[in-house]
Amino acid sequence: MHSRRNFNATMLAAMAAPQMGSAKVKRYVRFEHQGRTAHALHEGDDLLVLEGNILGSPKVTKTKRKLSEVKLLYPIVPPKVLAVGLNYKSHIGNRTPPSSPEIFYKPITCLTNPGDPIRIPATAKNVHYEGELVIVIGKTLHNVNRDQAIAGIFGVTCGNDVSERDWQNGAQKDLQWWRAKGADTFGPLGPAIVTGLDYGKLLLETKLNGQSVQKQYTSDLLFDCPAIVSYVSQFVTLTPGDLIYTGTPGSTKKMSPGDKVEVQIEGIGTLMNPIA
Amino acid sequence: MHSRRNFNATMLAAMAAPQMGSAKVKRYVRFEHQGRTAHALHEGDDLLVLEGNILGSPKVTKTKRKLSEVKLLYPIVPPKVLAVGLNYKSHIGNRTPPSSPEIFYKPITCLTNPGDPIRIPATAKNVHYEGELVIVIGKTLHNVNRDQAIAGIFGVTCGNDVSERDWQNGAQKDLQWWRAKGADTFGPLGPAIVTGLDYGKLLLETKLNGQSVQKQYTSDLLFDCPAIVSYVSQFVTLTPGDLIYTGTPGSTKKMSPGDKVEVQIEGIGTLMNPIA
Repeated sequence: MHSRRNFNATMLAAMAAPQMGSAKVKRYVRFEHQGRTAHALHEGDDLLVLEGNILGSPKVTKTKRKLSEVKLLYPIVPPKVLAVGLNYKSHIGNRTPPSSPEIFYKPITCLTNPGDPIRIPATAKNVHYEGELVIVIGKTLHNVNRDQAIAGIFGVTCGNDVSERDWQNGAQKDLQWWRAKGADTFGPLGPAIVTGLDYGKLLLETKLNGQSVQKQYTSDLLFDCPAIVSYVSQFVTLTPGDLIYTGTPGSTKKMSPGDKVEVQIEGIGTLMNPIA
Repeated sequence: MHSRRNFNATMLAAMAAPQMGSAKVKRYVRFEHQGRTAHALHEGDDLLVLEGNILGSPKVTKTKRKLSEVKLLYPIVPPKVLAVGLNYKSHIGNRTPPSSPEIFYKPITCLTNPGDPIRIPATAKNVHYEGELVIVIGKTLHNVNRDQAIAGIFGVTCGNDVSERDWQNGAQKDLQWWRAKGADTFGPLGPAIVTGLDYGKLLLETKLNGQSVQKQYTSDLLFDCPAIVSYVSQFVTLTPGDLIYTGTPGSTKKMSPGDKVEVQIEGIGTLMNPIA
């Protein structure tokens, strides 16, 4: 179990990051241990097991687990998953920036645990990574303004909005992105949901086989987190636990079996997935 | 409560329809009674309250409710909602028919109870009805063939895939159909999930203010229910309770406040919603 400890500890190691005022930073994970799943607070090498809804007032129990004992899971099971396209100037290039956030859905079945493989579908030929900051919604939000949106954001985590480019825009283009962005395993998420961070200014870096391939601050988002949440809520009610992948910076590359992709965000940790 | 009885009875009145071999037809509803929700079998004027998962082996309890006592709800709370576009020749017109089902997602927050109003969003100008047969998935389905798809379909119900055409295809076109097909209240569903019906040959009729505006047999679907389910499952795992809106026939029209839209399928009943 030594390697699992090292792996989990490496994933959860978080570079120092700017905080929200005097808010205490908390780190929430979900894990499996001897066939049972639980939520926990992550503190150092310990997981303090929680009871109750992490979005409500969960109770810290007396049960502690070591990182070495558990398998990390994606940190929350959401009611629904949204995502934003074309949300960094560096990704848009010569295309016209959108006048409002361009939203789409990912199905909850595509969510993938930290460390679990991304599987390339049999007929897929052009599967890319997209490293992203992901918003976790804490409240029911309908038609909210910017301040209410800020109050309704529970925390943030790392995500990989895995995308099949031929199905999205190429010769095999579908009418909608249902499988281009939604095939099984196309939604890696985690390892921790972090609250109390200033998510408006975090360094996001994606690595392919250890080499940096995307690197940008979330302050470069065209529509920042509160703007996205407020806009969506005008049309589609957000509910506690909903996720929003906020968009990817720069350019992306094709991944192949045997590759390893990492999405690293300061203050959160590293979301690593091998390609099967 | 006399009017509620009449309303519920009218909605649940089902024209005779072809059955699947010798299978017994069963009708499942979900309802609210004195602030509590329950699933039930619908038989005549009675609702036989069920205990346990309706997709598993629910137990018929001794509790009975009258139609007059309850508010009907959309008949199942699904993990996710999929839909098919361009799936009737009569709807496609001169466009090229797709070579495989064109899938998209609706968010679970858009689901709307029978009888509840469809609300036109403040900035929407062109909201259309789309009467559709909806598949309810009964099992976990990953990469299944046609026979396994048939075995994995629990039952069918009526749906209205409400669509804002300007957001979908017009001047205000979004990159994806997230709000065109997913705004709050854009997913009326119900009133009953019916099992044991031959869903391959049911008459679907949509009425706007009492006038027939869509009328077609589900035998005219380009991709029938098993074909849709099998195809989706190659890419996206379907799980028990998932819904698939199968596509709309013919042409559609704009709805305005004060209108009343009804989606009627033989063997199932009538899904009526007023426009607020």
